[in-house]
Amino acid sequence: MNSFGTLFRITIFGESHGPSVGINIDGCPAGIDISENDFLEDITRRQGGTQVGTTPRKEADIPIFLTGVFNNKTTGAPLTIIFENNNTRSGDYEKQKAIPRPGHADFTASQKFGGFEDYRGGGHFSGRLTVCVVAAGVVAKKILAKVNKNIVCKAHLKEVGGETDIENGIAKAIQAGDSVGGIVECVVKNLPIGLGEPFFDSAESLISHAVFAIPAVKGIEFGAGFAAAKMFGVAHNDAIQNKEGLTLTNNAGGIVGGITNGNDLTFRIAVKPTSSTPKMQQTYNSETESIENFSVKGRHDLCIALRVPVVLEAVTAIVLADLLLLTQKVERIF
Amino acid sequence: MNSFGTLFRITIFGESHGPSVGINIDGCPAGIDISENDFLEDITRRQGGTQVGTTPRKEADIPIFLTGVFNNKTTGAPLTIIFENNNTRSGDYEKQKAIPRPGHADFTASQKFGGFEDYRGGGHFSGRLTVCVVAAGVVAKKILAKVNKNIVCKAHLKEVGGETDIENGIAKAIQAGDSVGGIVECVVKNLPIGLGEPFFDSAESLISHAVFAIPAVKGIEFGAGFAAAKMFGVAHNDAIQNKEGLTLTNNAGGIVGGITNGNDLTFRIAVKPTSSTPKMQQTYNSETESIENFSVKGRHDLCIALRVPVVLEAVTAIVLADLLLLTQKVERIF
Amino acid sequence: MNSFGTLFRITIFGESHGPSVGINIDGCPAGIDISENDFLEDITRRQGGTQVGTTPRKEADIPIFLTGVFNNKTTGAPLTIIFENNNTRSGDYEKQKAIPRPGHADFTASQKFGGFEDYRGGGHFSGRLTVCVVAAGVVAKKILAKVNKNIVCKAHLKEVGGETDIENGIAKAIQAGDSVGGIVECVVKNLPIGLGEPFFDSAESLISHAVFAIPAVKGIEFGAGFAAAKMFGVAHNDAIQNKEGLTLTNNAGGIVGGITNGNDLTFRIAVKPTSSTPKMQQTYNSETESIENFSVKGRHDLCIALRVPVVLEAVTAIVLADLLLLTQKVERIF
Amino acid sequence: MNSFGTLFRITIFGESHGPSVGINIDGCPAGIDISENDFLEDITRRQGGTQVGTTPRKEADIPIFLTGVFNNKTTGAPLTIIFENNNTRSGDYEKQKAIPRPGHADFTASQKFGGFEDYRGGGHFSGRLTVCVVAAGVVAKKILAKVNKNIVCKAHLKEVGGETDIENGIAKAIQAGDSVGGIVECVVKNLPIGLGEPFFDSAESLISHAVFAIPAVKGIEFGAGFAAAKMFGVAHNDAIQNKEGLTLTNNAGGIVGGITNGNDLTFRIAVKPTSSTPKMQQTYNSETESIENFSVKGRHDLCIALRVPVVLEAVTAIVLADLLLLTQKVERIF
Repeated sequence: MNSFGTLFRITIFGESHGPSVGINIDGCPAGIDISENDFLEDITRRQGGTQVGTTPRKEADIPIFLTGVFNNKTTGAPLTIIFENNNTRSGDYEKQKAIPRPGHADFTASQKFGGFEDYRGGGHFSGRLTVCVVAAGVVAKKILAKVNKNIVCKAHLKEVGGETDIENGIAKAIQAGDSVGGIVECVVKNLPIGLGEPFFDSAESLISHAVFAIPAVKGIEFGAGFAAAKMFGVAHNDAIQNKEGLTLTNNAGGIVGGITNGNDLTFRIAVKPTSSTPKMQQTYNSETESIENFSVKGRHDLCIALRVPVVLEAVTAIVLADLLLLTQKVERIF
Repeated sequence: MNSFGTLFRITIFGESHGPSVGINIDGCPAGIDISENDFLEDITRRQGGTQVGTTPRKEADIPIFLTGVFNNKTTGAPLTIIFENNNTRSGDYEKQKAIPRPGHADFTASQKFGGFEDYRGGGHFSGRLTVCVVAAGVVAKKILAKVNKNIVCKAHLKEVGGETDIENGIAKAIQAGDSVGGIVECVVKNLPIGLGEPFFDSAESLISHAVFAIPAVKGIEFGAGFAAAKMFGVAHNDAIQNKEGLTLTNNAGGIVGGITNGNDLTFRIAVKPTSSTPKMQQTYNSETESIENFSVKGRHDLCIALRVPVVLEAVTAIVLADLLLLTQKVERIF
Repeated sequence: MNSFGTLFRITIFGESHGPSVGINIDGCPAGIDISENDFLEDITRRQGGTQVGTTPRKEADIPIFLTGVFNNKTTGAPLTIIFENNNTRSGDYEKQKAIPRPGHADFTASQKFGGFEDYRGGGHFSGRLTVCVVAAGVVAKKILAKVNKNIVCKAHLKEVGGETDIENGIAKAIQAGDSVGGIVECVVKNLPIGLGEPFFDSAESLISHAVFAIPAVKGIEFGAGFAAAKMFGVAHNDAIQNKEGLTLTNNAGGIVGGITNGNDLTFRIAVKPTSSTPKMQQTYNSETESIENFSVKGRHDLCIALRVPVVLEAVTAIVLADLLLLTQKVERIF
Repeated sequence: MNSFGTLFRITIFGESHGPSVGINIDGCPAGIDISENDFLEDITRRQGGTQVGTTPRKEADIPIFLTGVFNNKTTGAPLTIIFENNNTRSGDYEKQKAIPRPGHADFTASQKFGGFEDYRGGGHFSGRLTVCVVAAGVVAKKILAKVNKNIVCKAHLKEVGGETDIENGIAKAIQAGDSVGGIVECVVKNLPIGLGEPFFDSAESLISHAVFAIPAVKGIEFGAGFAAAKMFGVAHNDAIQNKEGLTLTNNAGGIVGGITNGNDLTFRIAVKPTSSTPKMQQTYNSETESIENFSVKGRHDLCIALRVPVVLEAVTAIVLADLLLLTQKVERIF
């Protein structure tokens, strides 16, 4: 389903080429200041329109507060935020129905929804919907700040196309005339101890559940992650130094037994190359019943990973807001 | 919470040194043949007692069907399976309460539950509970087989301590007198197309959610995974070859847009070294209020990853059983 | 929370005097024909503007399909329907904040949400939101019809102010210059056997859960209901007549052991008198800190029960759509 | 499904003639004193073995704490309580499979579960499982007491067979040689204001959801309930008297807008006559394919309503414990 969360529950809706995309937040505490301006920084970061390697498509992306806001504060009733889709060219997509683009959800969506899906621009599967996640993330970050204003949830691009010098990675992709993948890292400082449940709702379980909702994510690792698989125990275990649980190293990434331990929460995600590449590709045309070559025209990001950090922060903040409510570390009225 | 799943919902309970550990399956279809013998192979695989690198602790691990089975078939009512804990030496643990073991949940559990947790042998956080997951996995695999008897869900150890020759990896650990991590890969063949939901309940989301419930898992990657982050788009995209969606390559790991595409579902997980290492370690003693050195005595696995494959298969089968029910690919009465 | 359902899950949002009210349906099967016209009959029934005893407030109540509809069919992605609020006079309410109206949610909402709630016109607690429920009910009824076109879900007003001649009941209220309560009955014919789960999700549990979301409902009874408490067993038990489970009588109201038995599903609800009465009433003014007399001005229904039948049908159809999906009696693609 | 609750979630399992019945409580706060003795009073009340009109079947009904208790306190991990079934005579039931008893779940269970259900003694549908609900209620009552030791949750039998003098009602049934129904009322004093959510999780919604899980319940009404349907507004509205929300009357039954208002929570339920009556009845025999007369032999309650009060208290306390956690009126560690 298109919902996530127990006490801070988001429901996402909309299609790339429909009238609007939006998000509903149920369980949002009452009394949080909400104004359009609070959203602009993160929304602008997501647009990434001025960065090399991102699509020139620009949308106003003004959040419209449909419900749940009164006198510029949240009311405790469901908060609905929508974004209108202004800048769509549906004509681009009509002819593509029979030609599922490799790497896109075209084929699987069509199989799952019997051909009734809105296939224009990826429809409900479009990265466009991440603007809604970013908006919910802005609200979630406000909740984190109420617990402790020193909680900082920051994600950054760590690697593009295997290069830690990101500009080099992008340059390689431009030179190759192809899209490219990347790695994004997220660090959250000053979280309280005790978030996460022992078995199925471990902090890692909930974060990864939400993170894999971000289109193009294909892997996640906490702390030392995959490197831990190559390590010996004594090197991997983080020695506890004081009664607050500070550890000498942080190979656990701030989570032990599925529960936050008060050290920095750190994890990285693998973002695949943008599925829409300018290169010639092969796919199966269900109308002509033959394999054909084609290339994707139009405005597309060369490296979608460039736009992921703010979305990853948002998703992380959303999970943490829910966990903070679940463990009663934050009030229901501000 | 200690539950997972929507239509095939498991709830896990128990502690390492309590009278028993168990699992409840709600929503299990009626009419599935259930006998003790069906469980022995997977339970034995999990014990791993004869393998080098695994603990010599042996438990009978006979599944006891408490509810939901009648005339050796599931009834459609909640199915409860318990395992008695016979082979426990609680005396080992009494003195350790003040000394949280690095890498274990001792510290976080104590903080979360206010010191009321059953700390003996890891209590509810013990790997002992994975025997329950394995049992539920046996039931889940039967459901998969009802959809298509060619569905095969298999996990295997791919790497230990960085070595693809697993015996070498274990030998290194024995030589080092330390525990060691590993990588486990899972492949599921012949799954139907269409499992998974577009946004928050993508197949990757649900699988990773469940997988991070397995103690010691610190990373997961689907298909090309982290390698995708280094790739160009044309190399990563899997070219579609026919109307069934067969692809030339399988960098997506069988999931596109969060939905299975009919190709092999493939993913790998990173398992950290067993937290209990024979090596001397440092931790903070809350009674003496000082850092102290200690080493873990007793029976412990050198490489917990050796025992993970069957647990990973179980978790995967559990998620897939739920997804098959959600998408009506399997009946509620067999 | 403001959601209901497992596989056909609705989330309701909005306030009486905000820009709009709306509903999101997640899990709606794909391929259902959707046009504005399909909604008009039920929406008009709910308005009840021409009936004696109902408020003259008229709203266009045109459903706006924000998401999830493409080429006039549902897509399988979340379906969002909103209704704009055109006809609001917020000035009426500003001065009332300190004076909680008896029978209304003013006091409890203010206590729960710390005074941040949108108190204008009942805000999120307004009967206005039932237009959204009616819209979701229209979609749910289409799902019922796909299972069996003979399934009929009909509710009617059975009693007003104790009178089974409804016009008499209304006349009594007009004469008394007061609002009045009523009883609404719902009957669903030709349902399949087997809907509902044995324990906590009995058909009665789910229906009553949803029904008590309708403002002003204070009781529900299935089949013989409260009369059953006065009966002997042999008179109450419904004798089974054939292998399809047809019974001689229907004191069970079509549900036995929490599961539908194929006979007519029948239940009644008690609707309290409209809280807004023209009569002088007493309440506590938190500003003056004294009890004061006041009467409610403005446009209000004399008998809210008159408008409830279509809402009750909607709620019932929503529950049944979910149960039909849960028991695989209806497909996910039409 | 067989679960109920969000933060204090119970899962019930077992069959009348299986080895045991049980309940799992997930989300139970840590540090609650738990001893066998705490359960005996309520379990004994449920047995009702010494009352006229109740079955002479006696079971030891000793709660066995399988998991989640350590040093006589809850640990915060899932709490599992089972009761062994000692006193069963399965032979009584074997021949009845083809003869569904009117008023029982025999027919619907068989249809729903394809004949795989454990039909002995009602199987999973047996009133036997209410002993598990009572046990969970004991734990829930302890949570209520932590919020305010003056919270009192009490249910009593109000009417039997239409007689408010209960002994008269029972005498009538004995004279008639038949089973008889009754009405049970529940009152909860000193609850905090603010429990319940505006729309789908109103306090009435959640209570009625849980209450209809009790076998034989066919109706529920809050406050004035069905009588409200006959009332005028000014008589029904409860005038607010002070800033704590005390009302002159309590026709609302302590819930307005779905949210508790601090006045006594009051509601009544209708309990149908025990389905097993000594009288001759008619049903359809699926083996002989004909209608036949039969009467139920064996030990059965004449008036099941006699045993319901303690179960109703338990169910109510369970719902309230969850609502108290949801609204952060009670801690997660005691």
